[in-house]
Amino acid sequence: MNDIQSHEARYDCWLQHRDTYTGSLPEETLKKIFLMPAEGPLTHAAGELRRGLEKMFGISAKCGAKCGAGGGITLEIGAGGIPPEAFIIRAEDRGVIITGADEAGCLYGVYRFLALLAQGKICRGMEITDAPTTPIRALNHWDNLDGTIERGYAGASLFFKDNRVEYDPVRIQDYARLLASVGINRLSINNVNVRGPAKRLITEEYLPELAKLAAIFRPFGIRLLLSVNFSSPCSLGACASADPLDLAVAEWWKRRADMVYGAIPDLAGFLVKADSEGESGPFQYGRTHADGANMLAEAVAPHNGIVFWRCFVYNSTQDWRDTGVDRARAAYDHFMPLDGAFADNVILQIKHGPFDFQVREPVSPLFGALQKTRHLMELQITQEYTGHQIDLCYLPSMWEWVMNFDTRHGRNTAIKDLLGRSDGPGIGGLAGVGNVGLDRCWTGHPLAQANLYGYGRLAWQPSLSAQAIAEEWSALTFTNAQAAGTVEKLLLDSYRIYEKYTAPFGVCFMVTPGLHYGPDVEGYEFSRWGTYHRADREAIGIDRTETGTGYTGQYPPENAALFSDTSACPENLLLFFHRLRYDFKMRNGRTLLQNIYDTHFEGYDEARKMRDLWLSLEGRVCQTVFEIVKERLERQLENARQWRDVINTSFYRRTGIDDAQGRKIYR
Amino acid sequence: MNDIQSHEARYDCWLQHRDTYTGSLPEETLKKIFLMPAEGPLTHAAGELRRGLEKMFGISAKCGAKCGAGGGITLEIGAGGIPPEAFIIRAEDRGVIITGADEAGCLYGVYRFLALLAQGKICRGMEITDAPTTPIRALNHWDNLDGTIERGYAGASLFFKDNRVEYDPVRIQDYARLLASVGINRLSINNVNVRGPAKRLITEEYLPELAKLAAIFRPFGIRLLLSVNFSSPCSLGACASADPLDLAVAEWWKRRADMVYGAIPDLAGFLVKADSEGESGPFQYGRTHADGANMLAEAVAPHNGIVFWRCFVYNSTQDWRDTGVDRARAAYDHFMPLDGAFADNVILQIKHGPFDFQVREPVSPLFGALQKTRHLMELQITQEYTGHQIDLCYLPSMWEWVMNFDTRHGRNTAIKDLLGRSDGPGIGGLAGVGNVGLDRCWTGHPLAQANLYGYGRLAWQPSLSAQAIAEEWSALTFTNAQAAGTVEKLLLDSYRIYEKYTAPFGVCFMVTPGLHYGPDVEGYEFSRWGTYHRADREAIGIDRTETGTGYTGQYPPENAALFSDTSACPENLLLFFHRLRYDFKMRNGRTLLQNIYDTHFEGYDEARKMRDLWLSLEGRVCQTVFEIVKERLERQLENARQWRDVINTSFYRRTGIDDAQGRKIYR
Repeated sequence: MNDIQSHEARYDCWLQHRDTYTGSLPEETLKKIFLMPAEGPLTHAAGELRRGLEKMFGISAKCGAKCGAGGGITLEIGAGGIPPEAFIIRAEDRGVIITGADEAGCLYGVYRFLALLAQGKICRGMEITDAPTTPIRALNHWDNLDGTIERGYAGASLFFKDNRVEYDPVRIQDYARLLASVGINRLSINNVNVRGPAKRLITEEYLPELAKLAAIFRPFGIRLLLSVNFSSPCSLGACASADPLDLAVAEWWKRRADMVYGAIPDLAGFLVKADSEGESGPFQYGRTHADGANMLAEAVAPHNGIVFWRCFVYNSTQDWRDTGVDRARAAYDHFMPLDGAFADNVILQIKHGPFDFQVREPVSPLFGALQKTRHLMELQITQEYTGHQIDLCYLPSMWEWVMNFDTRHGRNTAIKDLLGRSDGPGIGGLAGVGNVGLDRCWTGHPLAQANLYGYGRLAWQPSLSAQAIAEEWSALTFTNAQAAGTVEKLLLDSYRIYEKYTAPFGVCFMVTPGLHYGPDVEGYEFSRWGTYHRADREAIGIDRTETGTGYTGQYPPENAALFSDTSACPENLLLFFHRLRYDFKMRNGRTLLQNIYDTHFEGYDEARKMRDLWLSLEGRVCQTVFEIVKERLERQLENARQWRDVINTSFYRRTGIDDAQGRKIYR
Repeated sequence: MNDIQSHEARYDCWLQHRDTYTGSLPEETLKKIFLMPAEGPLTHAAGELRRGLEKMFGISAKCGAKCGAGGGITLEIGAGGIPPEAFIIRAEDRGVIITGADEAGCLYGVYRFLALLAQGKICRGMEITDAPTTPIRALNHWDNLDGTIERGYAGASLFFKDNRVEYDPVRIQDYARLLASVGINRLSINNVNVRGPAKRLITEEYLPELAKLAAIFRPFGIRLLLSVNFSSPCSLGACASADPLDLAVAEWWKRRADMVYGAIPDLAGFLVKADSEGESGPFQYGRTHADGANMLAEAVAPHNGIVFWRCFVYNSTQDWRDTGVDRARAAYDHFMPLDGAFADNVILQIKHGPFDFQVREPVSPLFGALQKTRHLMELQITQEYTGHQIDLCYLPSMWEWVMNFDTRHGRNTAIKDLLGRSDGPGIGGLAGVGNVGLDRCWTGHPLAQANLYGYGRLAWQPSLSAQAIAEEWSALTFTNAQAAGTVEKLLLDSYRIYEKYTAPFGVCFMVTPGLHYGPDVEGYEFSRWGTYHRADREAIGIDRTETGTGYTGQYPPENAALFSDTSACPENLLLFFHRLRYDFKMRNGRTLLQNIYDTHFEGYDEARKMRDLWLSLEGRVCQTVFEIVKERLERQLENARQWRDVINTSFYRRTGIDDAQGRKIYR
């Protein structure tokens, strides 16, 4: 049995085999594929179409030259009128025509066609035009060369092992297919923390192997990115420093860029984490981040390369005693003054929130504020703070909230509106931190595949709703309709439930230090990371308004006012922005404390219902997937119980106030 | 320059070179060494004496046959009248005679003679007889085969690297000398957690190498011990289980013991951690610890081997919600009912306290209680909870308190009295968890050498005071008298200071989880390890009296009464035994809370004074040692500051009560 015929539910993801083809198009139409021109750039797309038809529907199609008006599926590259990477799908009487603006567009059209076919949504006479909202839809792996993955919860690296580039080429191709099928077009494969042997990736020791990897991804429209270490001129070259204003350093980077692009001519660029959490950077030499980024940008410019410069810069040796410092302010304080100082081929990569992918954070005030600097938004697909792919947590729900965040309360100033705009505050794309490893189901938790899928879909079209994505993914992944419906519900409930049983109302960082799974109310309370809530017997939270650290002042007046006013501030962010007494009255008339108790009791109960709902699907989903998910839901339930009780007990111990409903709080 | 002539203060430890010999014995006396008989068992002792004279005093002695009444130092094995390993040193007009009960005794006499000589305490006419109080004075390494050391703070393993036995034989000999010079006579070199390749130490893969190591230690009177994994019959053999009552299992162990003793005929025995913290054990098969230990004991009995069976057994998946379980009760609850059920060649190895080497714990109620079972006391020399050999913490101060603990308030029922008694409650010896690694000064912190020294001296003579040991060690290690005096003071202050700035009044486990360095008030509060203090806004601590978990009932009535009564209970253990309101009045008239504040402010201030005192020694001690200690004292000061402020702030936040003296408590 070849790999096209073999089926494995957990591995095939949303390119799942259906037992029978039930679409409204005549099956005959699907058995012929025509290319225009017959040989040339579309052979890969045609191959993917042929493969998809066979794998998903058991239909064997033949590729041939177009002759006359006969049916079949025609792939063509359009004469213009649609933007890069876009496609048109037309289901005409004579057959189906998939027109791509370019090769990538045609490929995306093919995957969309297959997905629509699988959902029974292709019918005669329909015409669909679709284009990605943003040109950069990146995925960042945090893979280390030893094969481990920083914040990875799905097994070892797909790319590295024992400090070598080592991979299964078939699996890499399958991965490229998954990514391309949801529109991802940029991929960094090594950790932004570039340490040890990873520093040598940009040398001849590794470049030939990386070039081979790039060649696997290339036909899928995916260009590689490389994370580089800012101090490379010292560690790899003969430079005495990595000072960006040192001409020898700049020259070293130019020569190095030439060498790297010699191996991978379409490399998208370099990804850089500088002056952050122990990584070196321009600060070391008294230079600005613009100095650092621009120097690198000049090196890659001749190759049309881009420097992705991360804005995750903050004082990571904070003293908890110092209430004047606020880590939430850091990205804006560091980068806003540099707006306009960056070269055209620098893109700032900004985490969606001011902290670090907490369960609930406001959107970073840099979005909407930067006017003269290219930038994109970084999301985290891997569930670092959201349950380690043990707990079910469907992240598009979080991201939908982010996308709908209005940066200025003007017209079309929500994040989803800025994504795709090419003027001042436009956001140039998304970068997602990947959640995939060698685990057979790719993502540890089979349902966490929905997060990868959802990320790709949102990067393509930021206005998609979490519900629409969940419906799509569930239908594609679970061929049994009842199962698909139930899974959709599970997904859509999951983020709200996870948020309920974890840190309350945007307070952040009540997690086990280092691990970031499970509760630890004071785990980050006296550390050097700027992660404090200062809970005492009366109150909890940091005042980030004008009367406090002034963080709200980084937002435009409408949002500053919104967040500063406890009666207007979104309640799920109350403790992010305010220090509140436990008897603070929330909008439901109950106290903050009682709301903490309530959400935690409810969160656990609802997690239990999720588990029970899944159990009802036995027999309707692949048994292997059933068992894996069941086991994870059981662990999630135990985690939810620990969260519920630790949070409730901790607050009870601090306040001495019982639950109004008399539910069990341990002493 | 050979190694006898070379000197390095941090490496030579208490066998330190003195610039000039200033003793009252004529130097001529020290230049001749006579052996009785001239050839034979004492050549090693004679070599050590000759080496010590040259190394420590620059005196070159010659060994010769005794002829007439000439002076010199005579080594002999006595005709009896003194117990095994004992010695007599007589400084007569004609010369010095060192008489050992046996080879080891003579060797111990030689080291003692050298030490006394270095302290200027040998004078004509003196006669010293000394014998070890207990026959077992063991050191346990927790070294892993990959070269790491569990809870090691002084570099990598002396014995293992990359899963091989790998060592510098000269260094091992130097280590053997250090150990023998303080009377240590049993040594386990591998971690009690026997995992991975360490399971194969008792196979032909490793035994030849271990035999070579044993041969280096043997002349120093040190017999090796091996930590073994209880499930070895499964992992190494063909047995389907490790059930101690399965005859095939017992037979497997017998054959294995034969093989091991074939390689190391004088092996002291096996050390076993069973049914503890994830290690396998007899519980797995529904058997008792006696079943498990006795089965192994039978295997080693033909070789005069002993099974050292650790009593660190407790439910390590405790639920913090369950106030009915008390980890402190575990060792007694598990082992007391088995008193009398163990074979004669089983020795239970019991940690000195009921928990796990906390800064302050009561002495385990098993001591004094066990009547029909051989047992010994385990101390921890490595500073797991006592500052990681960054902070200065002279442990003989702690151990002196342990040695003076009266198990029954009868006559001669203190721990130091039970050590050496061979009747019912007699304690058969001490086992110390080592603090040594490949660090050039052996112990990371040069002054932590005093803990190894002190352990050995106490194991030999449990009634030695911490002061006497500090004085001895300082004088031997620092040849400048002012330095020695200052260091003695630093040592004697250090434990009290460390206790002051860390967890208050015996409350235990307020440390960073996993790491065990630095404060984390709630770090172990909701974990599975049974380590709770349940601090709330009113009170803190666990009631371990009859009204609580009943732990005090494990002690004889006098001690149960003592600990149960808050007005009698030693104040440094108040929070171990009692749950107290923060306004509880302590004996100085101040509240518990105010005492917490006071001790923490004082602890930091006193740590600063220690640092300053050390700084005054520059020029009087070896500069290398000066710098290392200075750097560690600076880190200690930062640690003390963190402890002071985290503890004070945590209690302030819970109580809302300010320091009575208005000192700074962060909010």
